[in-house]
Amino acid sequence: MSSRIHHPGLRAKVMSADEAAAFIEPGSTVGMSGFTGSGYPKAVPTALAERIKAAHARGEDFQINLHTGASTSTEMDGALAEADGIALRTPFQSDPTMRAKINSGDIEYIDTHLSHLAQTVWNGFYGPMRTAVIEVSAIREDGTLVPSSSVGNNKSWLDLADQVILEVNSWQSEDLEGLHDVYYGTALPPQRKPIMIMDPADRIGQPYFECDPDKVVAVVETHAPDRNSPFKPADADSIAIARHLVDFFEHEVAHGRYDEHLLPLQSGVGNIANAVMAELVKSRFKGLTAFTEVVQDGMLDALDSGTLRLASATAFSLSTDKAEEFNANAGRYRDKLILRTQEISNHPELVRRLGILAMNGMLEADLYGNVNSTHLMGTTMMNGLGGSGDFARNAFTSFFLTPSTAKGGAISCIVPMVSHVDHTEHDVHVVVTEQGLADLRGLSPKQRARTIIDTCAHPDYKEQLQDYFDRAMRDSGGLHTPHLMDEALAWHQRFIETGTMRQG
Amino acid sequence: MSSRIHHPGLRAKVMSADEAAAFIEPGSTVGMSGFTGSGYPKAVPTALAERIKAAHARGEDFQINLHTGASTSTEMDGALAEADGIALRTPFQSDPTMRAKINSGDIEYIDTHLSHLAQTVWNGFYGPMRTAVIEVSAIREDGTLVPSSSVGNNKSWLDLADQVILEVNSWQSEDLEGLHDVYYGTALPPQRKPIMIMDPADRIGQPYFECDPDKVVAVVETHAPDRNSPFKPADADSIAIARHLVDFFEHEVAHGRYDEHLLPLQSGVGNIANAVMAELVKSRFKGLTAFTEVVQDGMLDALDSGTLRLASATAFSLSTDKAEEFNANAGRYRDKLILRTQEISNHPELVRRLGILAMNGMLEADLYGNVNSTHLMGTTMMNGLGGSGDFARNAFTSFFLTPSTAKGGAISCIVPMVSHVDHTEHDVHVVVTEQGLADLRGLSPKQRARTIIDTCAHPDYKEQLQDYFDRAMRDSGGLHTPHLMDEALAWHQRFIETGTMRQG
Repeated sequence: MSSRIHHPGLRAKVMSADEAAAFIEPGSTVGMSGFTGSGYPKAVPTALAERIKAAHARGEDFQINLHTGASTSTEMDGALAEADGIALRTPFQSDPTMRAKINSGDIEYIDTHLSHLAQTVWNGFYGPMRTAVIEVSAIREDGTLVPSSSVGNNKSWLDLADQVILEVNSWQSEDLEGLHDVYYGTALPPQRKPIMIMDPADRIGQPYFECDPDKVVAVVETHAPDRNSPFKPADADSIAIARHLVDFFEHEVAHGRYDEHLLPLQSGVGNIANAVMAELVKSRFKGLTAFTEVVQDGMLDALDSGTLRLASATAFSLSTDKAEEFNANAGRYRDKLILRTQEISNHPELVRRLGILAMNGMLEADLYGNVNSTHLMGTTMMNGLGGSGDFARNAFTSFFLTPSTAKGGAISCIVPMVSHVDHTEHDVHVVVTEQGLADLRGLSPKQRARTIIDTCAHPDYKEQLQDYFDRAMRDSGGLHTPHLMDEALAWHQRFIETGTMRQG
Repeated sequence: MSSRIHHPGLRAKVMSADEAAAFIEPGSTVGMSGFTGSGYPKAVPTALAERIKAAHARGEDFQINLHTGASTSTEMDGALAEADGIALRTPFQSDPTMRAKINSGDIEYIDTHLSHLAQTVWNGFYGPMRTAVIEVSAIREDGTLVPSSSVGNNKSWLDLADQVILEVNSWQSEDLEGLHDVYYGTALPPQRKPIMIMDPADRIGQPYFECDPDKVVAVVETHAPDRNSPFKPADADSIAIARHLVDFFEHEVAHGRYDEHLLPLQSGVGNIANAVMAELVKSRFKGLTAFTEVVQDGMLDALDSGTLRLASATAFSLSTDKAEEFNANAGRYRDKLILRTQEISNHPELVRRLGILAMNGMLEADLYGNVNSTHLMGTTMMNGLGGSGDFARNAFTSFFLTPSTAKGGAISCIVPMVSHVDHTEHDVHVVVTEQGLADLRGLSPKQRARTIIDTCAHPDYKEQLQDYFDRAMRDSGGLHTPHLMDEALAWHQRFIETGTMRQG
């Protein structure tokens, strides 16, 4: 078991998760590893949750501020939220218990661009980071660390924290070694330099984390899988959305606006993203690249088929079966996969330079192309913005994808006005539903509205949308972006009151 | 007069504005120079407007699609809009006639990030650019062009257009020569390279535009000032806002989050921006830099006093007196001023790397830090987003500034929910009114709301805002971002119906 810990001084610090968790003080700020359910610490957060519960039972206050890479798992976010152990959480989560406590007002949550968090913590206005709890796949003889299945903000947390707790997870493939590219060249301004990546395949860093062994207060050994769940085959809506996208790519190539290799693809997490990869594998496209956050099942398939020549990301998010298959064959992907820090995977400089085609899911879009990625009915946090802003804001083309309805048709995902804006009309180039694809580039707001109603809206809601737009064209104060202020959010209010956006 | 035209072949193409305007065809797309009322063509647009009116009088269709750098003037945007000569306008305007026709629905207007337009026109989905009409300050013997008082998108329009009309304006100072830095290294992806600016003072281009003389169909000589208006002294609100900002800079330096030279300043256009520079001149800060769009009066004063060591921008926007003073002393600023293409002045890569402190005006902010920069009561376009998105989206700190009320107090610029979102909660770090400064960094939505009500709201509206927030805390569906969907936009509706946002 301890064959993964090759540094004698750190081998001497191996202890139980309970002992390690005792280093974490009430009221402190903790940076943990973890991104889309991969590479998060498997043992210390649960032990910490037990410690917090015991403190609360004794009538003592015990909460921490928690920064991660992105979402983690039930045994981390879930356990800590269940224990009422979190005062503040950044920058992304997707756990049901955490979500419930955010929406009941018990946890302060800051939904942040994933490329922004490291610099803001460095800059100091979150206060000092006391402890980092980081999963690695091995500790090398010289004390450098082989990253795990996600890189996320780990480099920054290791650098910033006063004390470090390492979890060494022997479930992770030993062949992960060499896959990572950890860049130590970022800095706060005015010391910043250009980031010299010109192609998603470029490596500019090193495969290991640096960490002063003297800062390490505990090493915990684990053997536990990431939050991998069974693969769900794509549903009809996801396949339809994916086909519209591939048709659009063909159309743009035919018009000379993309070349045969398209441009580096960024693809959000979930069913639709997997379906897009599956449709690309079926297409004639070969030798594409991905410059994205997360490697899902579909991306590994696309690497296997030659559809992708390379994928650069910051984390895996695989199904149970695919994770096993990957662990058995990780060496095969040595030259095709790069995991970077999320500062780099999502960096505005690189997103703009490489000319990313950014494809992200959303909750709803409005007639004018504003997008809500995060808030149900304007008030309830779903997961968070994640990297969608990092990518969409600087992408060459930014696509937002959703089925045209939700809740069995009770919700139209195309509405007069979105109830929360995460991506403005200025940053949304293409909207896609299973009904069709609306290319909004070069269109004024009114032209966008007509296109979105025609191509994206569900037939059950077309007439209602057209009616709103027609009446707004008649009664709106100004006709640049026609709206009725007393009715713009009425669809959401109707859903709250009656359980459907459909007019009675 | 013709001493400014040193290329014999181009001297032979000198003609009247009427003759030049005859080259512009109905239905074509035209790229013109001009940015914040400087460096726009002074004669051809007016002549074109006359030509269009004559065509309309004969019952003929005649409209063009018009791309510029940013806003121009009455004799250009105003005349062409008055003549019903514009079908489509991008990316920014501020002319009253143009604005009226946009809001009556007669002109399609696409409000675009200023750093984005060039790449989208290059990429082709606006269709071919037939004609460029560009003001320059001189034509050199080798046919290269000395830019005028704005650079804007001129490099791109000169490269892209089939045919070019040059206006040589002898009103512009001959000493402008050498001030410009025109970078020819931008490209569409996947050919993009890092942009090697590490300090606002770095020059990476050349002082002249290239232009194939064979593409030039006409040269028109002019001697006319830019759209300069008399200087307005700062009002009390602007001074109060500026003082809050300077206090904040001091506070951040004291906490070690900015160094003594702060970080490069970006500052929008108008009274508040001038007041910020005036307060900085009075402060102890010295040797600062600006990396911004526009050089206003206050920035020249700050260069004179040593408060600024250097300003990089894409255009001037000076008062009548200051423009005369500058024209007489342009040589003095040779080493302190750089005018770049707007692709570079506003480039996301540089904004992120340099760590810009981005200060932009706005129309309204809401409790949660979302900002509306463009739409009166959600529907009526004021001017446009301009560069605020380019800067705020990638800035180190993004500030949004406004007096707390407008229309003599009938409008609160702090509202429950903004009626249009140009900058999301994720991109708004600091909100400033004359009442105070709300530092939203590291705050959750509810914490932001309390801070904004406490520090930014006008006393006349505090109670109303607090009442909305309290009731939203009680009745909102979710408590991450508490809102009442049936009341979130009621303040705007009340203003539309009663002429005030005040509750009866």
